[in-house]
Amino acid sequence: MMMMTMNGRGCGVAVLAQRARRALGLGSCRRHAHAASASGDSRKVYVGGAGVVPVTRQQDVTLEQMGAQAVRAALADADMDPKSVQAVFVGNMMSGMLSKQQHLGPLIANAAGLDLVEASTTEACCGAGGAALRMAYLAVMSGELETVAVVGTELMTHADRETITEALATASHWATEGAKGETFVSLNGKLMAEYMRRYNVPHAKFFPFAQVAHNNAMTAAHAVFPDKPLTLDMYENAPVVTDPIQLFDASPTCDGAACVLLTSNPSLAARAGGKRVRVASSAAATDILAVAMREDPLHLRAVEKSAMDAMSRAGVTHADIDIFELHDAYTSMACLALENAGFVPHGEGVEFAADGHISLDGQLPIATFGGLKARGHPVGATGVYQAAEMFMQLNGTAGMNQVPNTEILLEGE
Amino acid sequence: MMMMTMNGRGCGVAVLAQRARRALGLGSCRRHAHAASASGDSRKVYVGGAGVVPVTRQQDVTLEQMGAQAVRAALADADMDPKSVQAVFVGNMMSGMLSKQQHLGPLIANAAGLDLVEASTTEACCGAGGAALRMAYLAVMSGELETVAVVGTELMTHADRETITEALATASHWATEGAKGETFVSLNGKLMAEYMRRYNVPHAKFFPFAQVAHNNAMTAAHAVFPDKPLTLDMYENAPVVTDPIQLFDASPTCDGAACVLLTSNPSLAARAGGKRVRVASSAAATDILAVAMREDPLHLRAVEKSAMDAMSRAGVTHADIDIFELHDAYTSMACLALENAGFVPHGEGVEFAADGHISLDGQLPIATFGGLKARGHPVGATGVYQAAEMFMQLNGTAGMNQVPNTEILLEGE
Repeated sequence: MMMMTMNGRGCGVAVLAQRARRALGLGSCRRHAHAASASGDSRKVYVGGAGVVPVTRQQDVTLEQMGAQAVRAALADADMDPKSVQAVFVGNMMSGMLSKQQHLGPLIANAAGLDLVEASTTEACCGAGGAALRMAYLAVMSGELETVAVVGTELMTHADRETITEALATASHWATEGAKGETFVSLNGKLMAEYMRRYNVPHAKFFPFAQVAHNNAMTAAHAVFPDKPLTLDMYENAPVVTDPIQLFDASPTCDGAACVLLTSNPSLAARAGGKRVRVASSAAATDILAVAMREDPLHLRAVEKSAMDAMSRAGVTHADIDIFELHDAYTSMACLALENAGFVPHGEGVEFAADGHISLDGQLPIATFGGLKARGHPVGATGVYQAAEMFMQLNGTAGMNQVPNTEILLEGE
Repeated sequence: MMMMTMNGRGCGVAVLAQRARRALGLGSCRRHAHAASASGDSRKVYVGGAGVVPVTRQQDVTLEQMGAQAVRAALADADMDPKSVQAVFVGNMMSGMLSKQQHLGPLIANAAGLDLVEASTTEACCGAGGAALRMAYLAVMSGELETVAVVGTELMTHADRETITEALATASHWATEGAKGETFVSLNGKLMAEYMRRYNVPHAKFFPFAQVAHNNAMTAAHAVFPDKPLTLDMYENAPVVTDPIQLFDASPTCDGAACVLLTSNPSLAARAGGKRVRVASSAAATDILAVAMREDPLHLRAVEKSAMDAMSRAGVTHADIDIFELHDAYTSMACLALENAGFVPHGEGVEFAADGHISLDGQLPIATFGGLKARGHPVGATGVYQAAEMFMQLNGTAGMNQVPNTEILLEGE
């Protein structure tokens, strides 16, 4: 499941992926009876392959090259003929503002050697990657397209800090927030402060979210912080970004691109020796954009609704889910995502993390390749990195980061 | 059919709309056998209603208000309960750059009184509206969503000329075009010059495209130039923008928003006394973005492919189409759209127009409410205005602009 929480920025998309049985349609569908009947037919959407460009803080290639690199990596992973791809759906937020380049669809498609395919870009701020994935899922479900390449990409580090800060603030309700000096960080600072006040939680209690992310990133080849173990001392003594957010509470500014191939053709999804993975369901919802206009800023209604909808459509419950790839752009957002998606009661997220449940060997691993916090958060690319990571986990190719016996995985962006 | 030609900017989307029989599924489907079998089921997508905000050159409302106004107008037109709408798909190109506001989906959804719905923005430059419509078509075809509001919106006139010119140039291949000083106008100037050279056509030969657009706009309540008849003398003596483009060859910078409601629920599409309209098919394609990298700049391959695909999927031919709403951002682009969509042979577009075939009472009316040229071209909104106008023509509510006996309409963006 992918839930676009956008740092509480008003939207949620949920996608639920599951390891599929070899023998299609034979006994594996009890849980999906609801989803199948709701859509009126039994079309299935598989992940054919995935490709990730290592997340960096100084990419020396263009958006076009980076996106194409991710597409080629996914095609190689799937051992798929490029001619099988009929469409490229791009997730991106800031290319027009930071690179003076819109229309990434045809640009990336062409750079990847795909000619005359359908292509466009979907934008939903931090949830852009998840939104592009959602569109591709719907397109494949429609039967109009058999195979779609979903590319998430963002190039941020070439711009100066002021420009990036302003570009990110276009995700706020500009008239009442961005134009009044609010930034992504300041709005998240308010949410974190409110959480600490309401539940009487000191800053140190958020440490496990950062720690787990950095731990997992250490063995992830594509993570931006591959060699950075984090201690409580480092966490607590890091510079304050915006009170109460300190350096290790926030995800870094970075560059990256990832691609997943969605297909309804089971033979294109068949992998030698690997497991077949299918998207069991997806859902999306939006909340009021301006945080001040919401009844309760800690109640992320879009996350809640999209998560519940995705689970209901797939016929699964929280207990069935083995991994939760959530949107931890801030440590406090990881906590709020756990709570609002319904895995723990409101106010109990930090205790759940403190008890070790979110580690690779815990009850509900999160950020298995480092998450936004330590794999990195190239904004519009993030949701697709998460999907690629879900695929690796379910396909059994997650290497040192493999969570054993994983059958159902929920992605929240 | 909608074909996103993007002034030759590299992408094409084609949507074909048709008046539907009252008795659904009874004998009206011969032409759609192909589309139905290709999608594996017989799901139909209807246009439930449409709303247009008058296009202006000085909108005094925000994007948020303008988009919401279009949604409310469409809901009123459809006599539809807002609760029936499950998603808002926005088409927009420049909001981040010109208004510092991304994430228009939840913003507009909420301003229109829709709570917790799914929402995102699709961008494909001048084809953004058509691309959003294409996504909504796929979403409804998928069976996952029953009713989607497609909103096209663009607010351009509040920015200074230099800012707008640069924002529009982000639709070019920035590295080789925009960054080298090319603009939308200069690139179109090259295409027009090449057309004039290759086919030995003087500038005055493009007059009928501008004339028909201005004529039709005079009776269209939502057009930006409602009272501007155009003479050959005015056309030929207008200031040169970029040789050979003169003032009346180009569409104006303007603001606007439009909405169409797509639904698979026939009862939501039923209109008292009106005609039921369905989307017969849609298709999309992209060409190489940089014009200089194409084999032949006058061969708009994406327009050609998307048009042929849409017609083939719906099982119709050129002769079946009663109106062609094309992308006439420039008079020369109207001509190229006619030719590349296959309505006339290459090089014969101007003669076709000179013979009167493109007028409201001609063989193939175009720009029936003024087109981009005179209804106006609020970039990301244009494709949705075209869809709203297709709906009015097929539904018999086009007033003074009604083309009689219209059964099948092709929209090219």
